[in-house]
Amino acid sequence: MNPASFPLPFGVFSVGADRPRVGVAIGDRVLDLAATLGDPVFDHPSLNPFLARGPAAWSAARAALLGALDTGGHTGDLERHLVPIDDVRLHLPIEVADFVDFFSSLEHASNAGRILRPGQAALKPNWRHLPVGYHGRAGTVVVDGTPVRRPWGQYKDGPAGPPHYAPSAKLDIEVELGFVVGAGSEPGTTVTVDEFEQHVFGTVLLLDWSARDIQAWEYEPLGPFLSKSFATTISPWVIPLESLAAAKVVPAPQDPAPLSHLTGTAPFSYDIRLELRLNDHLVSTPGFASMYWTPAQQLAHMTSNGACLRTGDLYGTGTISSWDASGYGSFMELTWNGEVPIDLPDGDRRGFLQDDDVVVVSATAPAPDGGRIALGRVSGRVLPATSGAGLG
Amino acid sequence: MNPASFPLPFGVFSVGADRPRVGVAIGDRVLDLAATLGDPVFDHPSLNPFLARGPAAWSAARAALLGALDTGGHTGDLERHLVPIDDVRLHLPIEVADFVDFFSSLEHASNAGRILRPGQAALKPNWRHLPVGYHGRAGTVVVDGTPVRRPWGQYKDGPAGPPHYAPSAKLDIEVELGFVVGAGSEPGTTVTVDEFEQHVFGTVLLLDWSARDIQAWEYEPLGPFLSKSFATTISPWVIPLESLAAAKVVPAPQDPAPLSHLTGTAPFSYDIRLELRLNDHLVSTPGFASMYWTPAQQLAHMTSNGACLRTGDLYGTGTISSWDASGYGSFMELTWNGEVPIDLPDGDRRGFLQDDDVVVVSATAPAPDGGRIALGRVSGRVLPATSGAGLG
Repeated sequence: MNPASFPLPFGVFSVGADRPRVGVAIGDRVLDLAATLGDPVFDHPSLNPFLARGPAAWSAARAALLGALDTGGHTGDLERHLVPIDDVRLHLPIEVADFVDFFSSLEHASNAGRILRPGQAALKPNWRHLPVGYHGRAGTVVVDGTPVRRPWGQYKDGPAGPPHYAPSAKLDIEVELGFVVGAGSEPGTTVTVDEFEQHVFGTVLLLDWSARDIQAWEYEPLGPFLSKSFATTISPWVIPLESLAAAKVVPAPQDPAPLSHLTGTAPFSYDIRLELRLNDHLVSTPGFASMYWTPAQQLAHMTSNGACLRTGDLYGTGTISSWDASGYGSFMELTWNGEVPIDLPDGDRRGFLQDDDVVVVSATAPAPDGGRIALGRVSGRVLPATSGAGLG
Repeated sequence: MNPASFPLPFGVFSVGADRPRVGVAIGDRVLDLAATLGDPVFDHPSLNPFLARGPAAWSAARAALLGALDTGGHTGDLERHLVPIDDVRLHLPIEVADFVDFFSSLEHASNAGRILRPGQAALKPNWRHLPVGYHGRAGTVVVDGTPVRRPWGQYKDGPAGPPHYAPSAKLDIEVELGFVVGAGSEPGTTVTVDEFEQHVFGTVLLLDWSARDIQAWEYEPLGPFLSKSFATTISPWVIPLESLAAAKVVPAPQDPAPLSHLTGTAPFSYDIRLELRLNDHLVSTPGFASMYWTPAQQLAHMTSNGACLRTGDLYGTGTISSWDASGYGSFMELTWNGEVPIDLPDGDRRGFLQDDDVVVVSATAPAPDGGRIALGRVSGRVLPATSGAGLG
């Protein structure tokens, strides 16, 4: 195997009671970076100090790692710094600064519009002119495997009648990628589409947990709030953009052409294919390549008003979806708002998520030498809502 | 003067090249807390480590300070730790974790609805059932006096025609209070209305900078994003809730009665009166006492889905406003969306904010021994937009 085809994803791990530090996944083992490269920037419980150094440092670290792997892809002298992945605990890899979530799949936005606003235009007038987005809650971003408790919230059971406060009955996830900002920017400046790789370090898999009943009642006019703020799950491994060079593809056509501040000289998307599993059953295979707005356009938009970026900023792409059920990226779409339950091979049926359900998303991208490389996974189990008494 | 009537606001200051540390304002001087109380928790560039200790520690620090002031309110032994406020630089007092902004004035929500959606119901159906809110950008919260650059953004000049990318022509502020969370909470738990003072340390004055043209185009269906994310200004001094004991008043009546999770046993608002000045001219005097949703209800709502709180979380109350122009808390209301400019005493007229305009908000609250105490101020000057060339 060509060493350059190792994805070399970065994360934060600990062994036993040792304090968490930065590692890179190599096969089924984790390489202790502080020990390997002798750089104390990796002896931290988050990637942020390393990310803050910027793209030249990211490239140098990757080159040093590739150099340490011999041409056969063997680990050679690195052996003594490798720990079996089953022996480590993986932590949230970044201290999240601001979290933003976009809504950039034409397929998802169209499906959602048809489901939630039947009889009206599926897309709002702004949708094809800018990547619609909003800020989410940074403090509830958790790492893969963290159980997610079903939220309580205020909602109505139908158009008539008063709202009530109850556990959500329409718990959902959205399959997304998240992009991690490493190098910040100055207040009052903008980041162009072409500067994407100078600021963004890499990507994670992201589960945007969503309570559709709470969302439907709360979202006008200021957008989703408590329907999304209880949890967002990301994968423990951040895939550097440099590892995705072979995955770049021509992005979806845009009509109308975007305004100049959203236009790059060499636009690209990524050929990343995702798999959504519910309780070990494959239910959908969304493809990222067709997303209408690219991650570089999302970054340019986010800074187009002069808002600065900080190390650790995380932005979700929005649900990755498709025109047919094979690639729907949410249970709202897979079950058409719960009205058309899906049948699982074990005989179960599902509208929205039930307690103890386990959702897993995994992904692959093209390798430089052909074939596809695994980009890891993100997962979460649904815990039952707390009892009403516990809520005071 | 009774020492108990000192507001004893907490902030972060530096003298010359010394590193920033925690201080308390006493008249026109700043008391160096680490030196005075001998506690290294105050030798930090933010209040967060102190805030994380929780309400018993907040009370103890206040009691120690009041004890050090003699019964005449004199500074006595504290003299050597006092620095003239003109000799210090004031910094952002907290590391902002998550920033949330509410929309809780019935007067403002009604005015905004009439201005922006004429002919429709002023309030959305959810408004009287829950405190509508959304997440804002924590990374662009700045301290009093930080100049704010006019943002560029995508907007339409009218209902017809395509959007364009240009400096905002409808730059506005909203007069708000911000509440600062000191003690966090566990994921999956809720904070009740009655637990407000166990988690919130104090309040700041807050300017919510808003670009109305960008907002009108972007906000559907996910809410305000770039129209708000370029800057939010807070006062350098955080007023502890304990200093506001004499300011508690019965809150506005609520109809319908809120659901039980938004109901407290002894609801209160604060008699805080604000003054909005444009270029030294008093243009409005909003009153906080009449806000429909109280800060305690906002906190309970924010956690009602189990989302955790973190030390440094900041939430804005939403624009504080009134039914008539005497207390409008935004230029959108004062000028009815720019259509009815206001005349300033120096002969100037204003619709929305112009370059070099200076906005100042100050506030007072009742003192324990009668009269009113000053709660400080928050201000910002508008810088011209960058040139288009600078935007790439």
